Amino acid sequence: MDILLQHRSIRKYKSDAVSDEMLNEILEAGTRASTTGNMQLYSVVVTRDAASKARLAPLHFNQGMVTQAPVFLTVCADLNRFNRWCELRQADAGYDNLLWVVNGIIDASLFAQNICIAAESKGLGICYLGTPLYNAPEIIEALNLPKGVIPVTAISLGYPDHEPGLTDRLPLSAIVHHETYRENTDERINDMYREKEALESSAQFVAENGKQNLAQVFTDVRYKKADNLYFSEKLLKTIREQGFNM
Amino acid sequence: MDILLQHRSIRKYKSDAVSDEMLNEILEAGTRASTTGNMQLYSVVVTRDAASKARLAPLHFNQGMVTQAPVFLTVCADLNRFNRWCELRQADAGYDNLLWVVNGIIDASLFAQNICIAAESKGLGICYLGTPLYNAPEIIEALNLPKGVIPVTAISLGYPDHEPGLTDRLPLSAIVHHETYRENTDERINDMYREKEALESSAQFVAENGKQNLAQVFTDVRYKKADNLYFSEKLLKTIREQGFNM
Repeated sequence: MDILLQHRSIRKYKSDAVSDEMLNEILEAGTRASTTGNMQLYSVVVTRDAASKARLAPLHFNQGMVTQAPVFLTVCADLNRFNRWCELRQADAGYDNLLWVVNGIIDASLFAQNICIAAESKGLGICYLGTPLYNAPEIIEALNLPKGVIPVTAISLGYPDHEPGLTDRLPLSAIVHHETYRENTDERINDMYREKEALESSAQFVAENGKQNLAQVFTDVRYKKADNLYFSEKLLKTIREQGFNM
Repeated sequence: MDILLQHRSIRKYKSDAVSDEMLNEILEAGTRASTTGNMQLYSVVVTRDAASKARLAPLHFNQGMVTQAPVFLTVCADLNRFNRWCELRQADAGYDNLLWVVNGIIDASLFAQNICIAAESKGLGICYLGTPLYNAPEIIEALNLPKGVIPVTAISLGYPDHEPGLTDRLPLSAIVHHETYRENTDERINDMYREKEALESSAQFVAENGKQNLAQVFTDVRYKKADNLYFSEKLLKTIREQGFNM
């Protein structure tokens, strides 16, 4: 429980290596997560080699964690393994559609979160990178991912070399609904975001970017509509190229 | 770490209630999970009322956990809250596309897994239900989910009333690739699935269903092509109806 409550994203790592034994224990703990029908629709590519990391770095917009962390994990939704099994057993698989892409994404995400918690329980730090969804085709090429496999998220992992504070969260009442969904009225939205908007870091983001408020920092700077449309189309195309009818 | 390794899905629950305090602590631990840009693109609907559970049960194909567990959680990808905030702040949001559906699904999944681990650390048992993806429009109606919200997974939660054994997993070598993806050759597939196929429970599934092998139990009985196509189309239609361009 404390491990969950103490989570922060670690973006600077010591040069200390993570042993094979420790990494295996962490990945093994990953596989204990629940999956759809116990089908384990995921796989992970471990990058430890410096040249491989250097190749991946630009695909993650050169975020420093990729090359600096001793271990870099690309977590994938994987229907290839299951489909190959079905094929070998004369079983007529029908897992090439949206439903199974989503099942694979969920399986991969639960696996990833178990990995992160296991790593943190061993004193390691982690950081998720959302970039696999942005540069899926380039990552597919770099890691030689076959049909049926889609990179979903990435995790950098190693011994922490900084101690960032906990980041803010919305109040629990913004997240939790009882029996039915409670409407997000203007009044409730103002209440939910008041604390976040009042943070010093938020004021700084707004000022630095010359925006009127924090929401505009998200929509006009961090995750812009034009970029979203571009990367969304690119992702859809990639999922289709990986053999899914969508 | 032990909590991760000892995970099993619990499908029978004692009638003992889960206190509000405990549930809040569990949900709070959920919110410590990482999310895309700390945007927390998820929400959860808590069902504890007997009448609400009875209404939900058929939407989960009448699996016993829905009505029997003291707490039933529907975990959703939620862009509604963030979009409403942007709208109120004159920020031009562009989160109505595939990329952000997937970001929401990942955020919701990491949140869900933290909830499960927090619950297990308190002696509770959990079971994931994949049914929200099958009956999303009916669940949306039952829970009054607004535009931008998609039910992703569900979790039943309570004190365990049975002690199932650990379920099997593929060998770690089937899941983990080093530097690049290693091809799933016929030989490797046969090795990976040998242990699973040799389980007594597998032989029983095969015999009961009059199939030739375990893979055919998946493709012809549990997750049939025709059903997959039907539910995949239904899910796509629902995601569009919830306001996403896909």
